[in-house]
Amino acid sequence: MLATVLHKPGDVHCEEVADPKILKPTDAIIELSASCICGSDLWPYRGLQPLDGPMHMGHEYCGVVVETGSEVRTVRPGQFVVGSFCLSDNTCPHCRFGFQSSCVQREFMSGAQAPYARVPLADGTLVATDEIPSADLVPHMLAASDVLGTGWYAADAAEVRPGSTVVVVGDGAVGLMGVLAAGEMGAGRIIAMSRHESRQKLAKEFGATDIVAERGEEGVARILDMTKGVGADSVLECVGTMQSMDQALACSRPGGTIGYVGVPHGVSLEGERLFFGQKRMLGGPAPVRRFLPDLMDRVLGGKIQPGKVFDLRLPLEQVAEGYKAMDERRAIKTLLLV
Amino acid sequence: MLATVLHKPGDVHCEEVADPKILKPTDAIIELSASCICGSDLWPYRGLQPLDGPMHMGHEYCGVVVETGSEVRTVRPGQFVVGSFCLSDNTCPHCRFGFQSSCVQREFMSGAQAPYARVPLADGTLVATDEIPSADLVPHMLAASDVLGTGWYAADAAEVRPGSTVVVVGDGAVGLMGVLAAGEMGAGRIIAMSRHESRQKLAKEFGATDIVAERGEEGVARILDMTKGVGADSVLECVGTMQSMDQALACSRPGGTIGYVGVPHGVSLEGERLFFGQKRMLGGPAPVRRFLPDLMDRVLGGKIQPGKVFDLRLPLEQVAEGYKAMDERRAIKTLLLV
Repeated sequence: MLATVLHKPGDVHCEEVADPKILKPTDAIIELSASCICGSDLWPYRGLQPLDGPMHMGHEYCGVVVETGSEVRTVRPGQFVVGSFCLSDNTCPHCRFGFQSSCVQREFMSGAQAPYARVPLADGTLVATDEIPSADLVPHMLAASDVLGTGWYAADAAEVRPGSTVVVVGDGAVGLMGVLAAGEMGAGRIIAMSRHESRQKLAKEFGATDIVAERGEEGVARILDMTKGVGADSVLECVGTMQSMDQALACSRPGGTIGYVGVPHGVSLEGERLFFGQKRMLGGPAPVRRFLPDLMDRVLGGKIQPGKVFDLRLPLEQVAEGYKAMDERRAIKTLLLV
Repeated sequence: MLATVLHKPGDVHCEEVADPKILKPTDAIIELSASCICGSDLWPYRGLQPLDGPMHMGHEYCGVVVETGSEVRTVRPGQFVVGSFCLSDNTCPHCRFGFQSSCVQREFMSGAQAPYARVPLADGTLVATDEIPSADLVPHMLAASDVLGTGWYAADAAEVRPGSTVVVVGDGAVGLMGVLAAGEMGAGRIIAMSRHESRQKLAKEFGATDIVAERGEEGVARILDMTKGVGADSVLECVGTMQSMDQALACSRPGGTIGYVGVPHGVSLEGERLFFGQKRMLGGPAPVRRFLPDLMDRVLGGKIQPGKVFDLRLPLEQVAEGYKAMDERRAIKTLLLV
């Protein structure tokens, strides 16, 4: 089949690779209904993450099961499924505690920017729907696999409550999903920090009540001004740089909570600063599996349309252009038609 | 009056100072029923915190109000009161959010190792009892002012729940109070990390179910072994060094929570480590005022006896020996009879 391989920074394209097959009795093979490019795919694409060799790209997926290993019990061929980018058994103590992204058997999904993919730990990872959803729902279901689940986790980790004041740092796809999640959780005020008009517009569509275009000290001053000097109850840090973490720390009130889901690159925090800042913090790779059934229900019920975050649609063969457009910030997130 | 002054590292003693007086209409003057030495007093005593000049020591206090400023409304002369080491107005947004230790008017108490002391922001800071408690209750009431309140906050910040598994890092007075707090909050298992027999004994008296004497990697291995490889739901970090924070991070389960109340000295945390460790964290100076009415009720009702943490009692004149005994770890905590 034709699938997406990253050979070296900047060099990604579709090429012929072996079809995926069952390697373990707990695997499933799915035929993807659609795939997409993640902001985190840009780290190795930009050379900011070491490559051990050619990398089969793609970890966001939904589709129809075509084959299952002999031990798979909860899904069967013909079912439409969504799974998390973190593969998990959903039975270990960490999974049962709601942190499937720290599953003792955790693996990270790969190879999903392709027509077919192998999903290890299928029983724990995949959630099936009763019926095959209509085509217009596929982008929304696909979003649940990572970008929505990660934004949702950011809001959950930031302890967004009905009526609370929320700041979202980062206007990438995850940040925008964080806005949507905060809205669903009943936040009273959602301040999206964004300098880009198209993203500001989408943030508003997803439920942002205010936009702050300023950054750094000016951005902090704006947030404090808007909150009568108090700061936000909850801050979603959706970037992963020192600058964005500084922003999150400075915008949250004492006793407020920061949910951070941007994979940190060059972030270092002094203990004394955290101590006297008195911010509650939780981050990490999102345990999407915890939220998945609920998120899928919200999509199927028409309550949320997270797939609006895809502002570029390309056939899989043009995957290189998809990466380029996101790298150059011409696109927020690219949907790949497989 | 004779009061405690630290002149330079190692040089602390009682000397004649001016009696405290009302400086602002929101002040109160109290006659202390007892005072004590805090572990944090040892930082400047050991030369690990800069001194701007002679320092009037003591921030833990309880006693009887003798005079109030013209604007004080909630306490009156003759009442027995306890206050937090953090002075707060208890009306600002941070106070109302339960974080009085970040009050917009916050000051830190000083000069309480003395027979009399000035308490700024008296209305917000002091909590009065209905009657003057009997003398045997005074050490327990005094403990509520800081050491108990701080241990309680550690357990609260670490989200100790009924039945949960708790590790307490640090067997100083605050750590021991953390053990007591975790017990009161219904923890199912409380593992105290302590190498000192007298502290181990007291930890058990306060409710520790297990003692781990090992530290570092061996300590972590013991905790993981005791929790079937999972780690603790909640960890109370009650020291403030890099070593103790490492211990806390390594002993807590993914999705578990660390409450850290040891003032960090030389602690630095990499973002990537926090991210993939996936630990919830909250620390800072304890908002004791939030807990004070409840803690005082528990003492008055005979439910808890936190004053057992005082294992050395000295007259105020011998305060120097009190510091020395704690510095040399001959005493856990010194009560000063004023």
